[in-house]
Amino acid sequence: MAKGLAAGNEAAISGYSVARSLRWENGELYILDQTRLPGEIMEEKQESAEMVWDSIRRLKVRGAPAIGIAGAYGLLIGTRPLLGKSVEEFMAGAREVAAYLAGARPTAVNLGWALHRCLDFAAAHSGEAKDSEELYRMLTAEAERIHAEDRAICRGIGESGEPLIREGCGVLTHCNAGALATSELGTATAPLYLAFAHGCHFRVYSDETRPLLQGARLTSWELQRAGLDVTLICDDMAAYVMSKGLVDLCIVGCDRVAANGDFANKIGTLGVAILAKHFSIPFYVACPSSTIDLNTPCGDVIPIEERGSEEVTSFGARRTAPEGIKVRNPAFDVTPHDLVSGFITEKGIIKPDYGVSLAKVVGQ
Amino acid sequence: MAKGLAAGNEAAISGYSVARSLRWENGELYILDQTRLPGEIMEEKQESAEMVWDSIRRLKVRGAPAIGIAGAYGLLIGTRPLLGKSVEEFMAGAREVAAYLAGARPTAVNLGWALHRCLDFAAAHSGEAKDSEELYRMLTAEAERIHAEDRAICRGIGESGEPLIREGCGVLTHCNAGALATSELGTATAPLYLAFAHGCHFRVYSDETRPLLQGARLTSWELQRAGLDVTLICDDMAAYVMSKGLVDLCIVGCDRVAANGDFANKIGTLGVAILAKHFSIPFYVACPSSTIDLNTPCGDVIPIEERGSEEVTSFGARRTAPEGIKVRNPAFDVTPHDLVSGFITEKGIIKPDYGVSLAKVVGQ
Repeated sequence: MAKGLAAGNEAAISGYSVARSLRWENGELYILDQTRLPGEIMEEKQESAEMVWDSIRRLKVRGAPAIGIAGAYGLLIGTRPLLGKSVEEFMAGAREVAAYLAGARPTAVNLGWALHRCLDFAAAHSGEAKDSEELYRMLTAEAERIHAEDRAICRGIGESGEPLIREGCGVLTHCNAGALATSELGTATAPLYLAFAHGCHFRVYSDETRPLLQGARLTSWELQRAGLDVTLICDDMAAYVMSKGLVDLCIVGCDRVAANGDFANKIGTLGVAILAKHFSIPFYVACPSSTIDLNTPCGDVIPIEERGSEEVTSFGARRTAPEGIKVRNPAFDVTPHDLVSGFITEKGIIKPDYGVSLAKVVGQ
Repeated sequence: MAKGLAAGNEAAISGYSVARSLRWENGELYILDQTRLPGEIMEEKQESAEMVWDSIRRLKVRGAPAIGIAGAYGLLIGTRPLLGKSVEEFMAGAREVAAYLAGARPTAVNLGWALHRCLDFAAAHSGEAKDSEELYRMLTAEAERIHAEDRAICRGIGESGEPLIREGCGVLTHCNAGALATSELGTATAPLYLAFAHGCHFRVYSDETRPLLQGARLTSWELQRAGLDVTLICDDMAAYVMSKGLVDLCIVGCDRVAANGDFANKIGTLGVAILAKHFSIPFYVACPSSTIDLNTPCGDVIPIEERGSEEVTSFGARRTAPEGIKVRNPAFDVTPHDLVSGFITEKGIIKPDYGVSLAKVVGQ
């Protein structure tokens, strides 16, 4: 367990650095424990599949892309004790480890996807491998490819969105669609990091994002750390800063885009989109093109998970609402497509008519 | 110091009870310590001017009307040691006590107003009083009149607004413009309490209202306690519950209404008003007609106080944002008049054109 950030935990981009949610170095996986942020910066070297499972389960690593990558590397950590066994025994063990890791967050689509991809790859190449060591090396290369692909997608989103960030402008974001949720530049934050690296001066407003405060704990931390000009506000102050002319652009992340351009994201996103429309502020959604789900016709059919009431009624150990109070705690909301100025993807910015343009990009 | 609510601390309204922020009984002032809510319900008997000063300063009693009433009774508590002195000595001492109490919250207009009213009354009647005991009795009657007037105004607001509350409807409110902020029924809550007392069934959504959580700690507590169907939500969930068709009406309180109908209220009110407009939900502002300030032409000239950053960077006692992070913490925002469906006052509901209608009501 390494206390503090190792010098290696920096993604050097033109002279500044972005925090990494995880890193893979010399065959070892290090996870930045996000549950300790912003108070404590601690990386933990992952010693076993159990430890990776726990890191995913307890949200030490979070964000769909980051969880997928952690799962892929976790499969390596978990199969390391099988080195020296036969290829067949290694494959059987790998399936067990993958099933175990997938159970850490059963609803996290990216986790299952990454583990399946690694298993399928190993199965397809097990015939070529002369021993489990060689198969392990091939599996390592596949996990590293998953990791590299995510980095490339984040960078692509950044390059697509960077022209939106103008000198002197103000950008409002909600929740954390940042480096901490991915492998590198983040999604909503990628255009910000690139613009900053290229010398652009601008202000960022970070909604604290109740109930779990990802904006306060994570987004403002990672942007501040990278040197950006970030101001933290409570969610109910967004209208105020917009009314004062301080916001020229909103960029948020996204969990799922429906075929018609409706999209689901962290609770509170819908409110930001409505406020942006009221103040005629462009509202953009940053996401990998893989987030576009043409099998979901519109936002109405996206299920919204309700989480435990204690997230709303208390913070830390302190109760802030009366006992027995009724609570709503939807984890997500759905923003209709007519409030979206564009989707910033690694394949460029997708503009309306979304019914046509989204399908075209997915078909590429 | 009385632990728990005395049986007397209930305002019986057709068989149910509303919490009282303070009560005056047998010449004694009891203040419900709101800083302990919702975890602990404790009334404190006020033994001295210093204790009243502290209760006001530390927000044990809060809300413009309640502070004014506490100040008026505080003047009685503070001048009690002067009984037996000459009328002149009593008056001189009363001026000192009033100046001292006014300093507990120098920006609270109602506190200064109530203390001045009591002092002016005492000065005007000091010639009639045969001794300080008689003057004290006259001053007591004046404080009780201030108290009774506030009760009557709250009830008047309730009667004006009650027809807006329809069977089965959903009402969203922000912050606490409730019984706890006034002497009895509250302002925004008064129509709710009356409708409930008359057998109407409806749901209330209470925004938690960051950063100080008055909605979570106070509004949801007092409504729950009175038996209303109240659901607590985070501020960034308001758009979601509106999008689900759960809200038919918004009612908020108000700190100041400008001559054109723009008004200042707790931070976050502007956002609620914009969301309500987006979803075509009527948005009402409840306030005593004394809140209308014809000397303020429009909302642009209302100064917005910024409070300390620690309210935003911590939650309860726990720090939730990085050290050194920049913060905005406006205590209020201004909502433009075109988002207001009407002002619910003790003189009826005031509708547009506000430039005309507000002046007419003030002139009555």
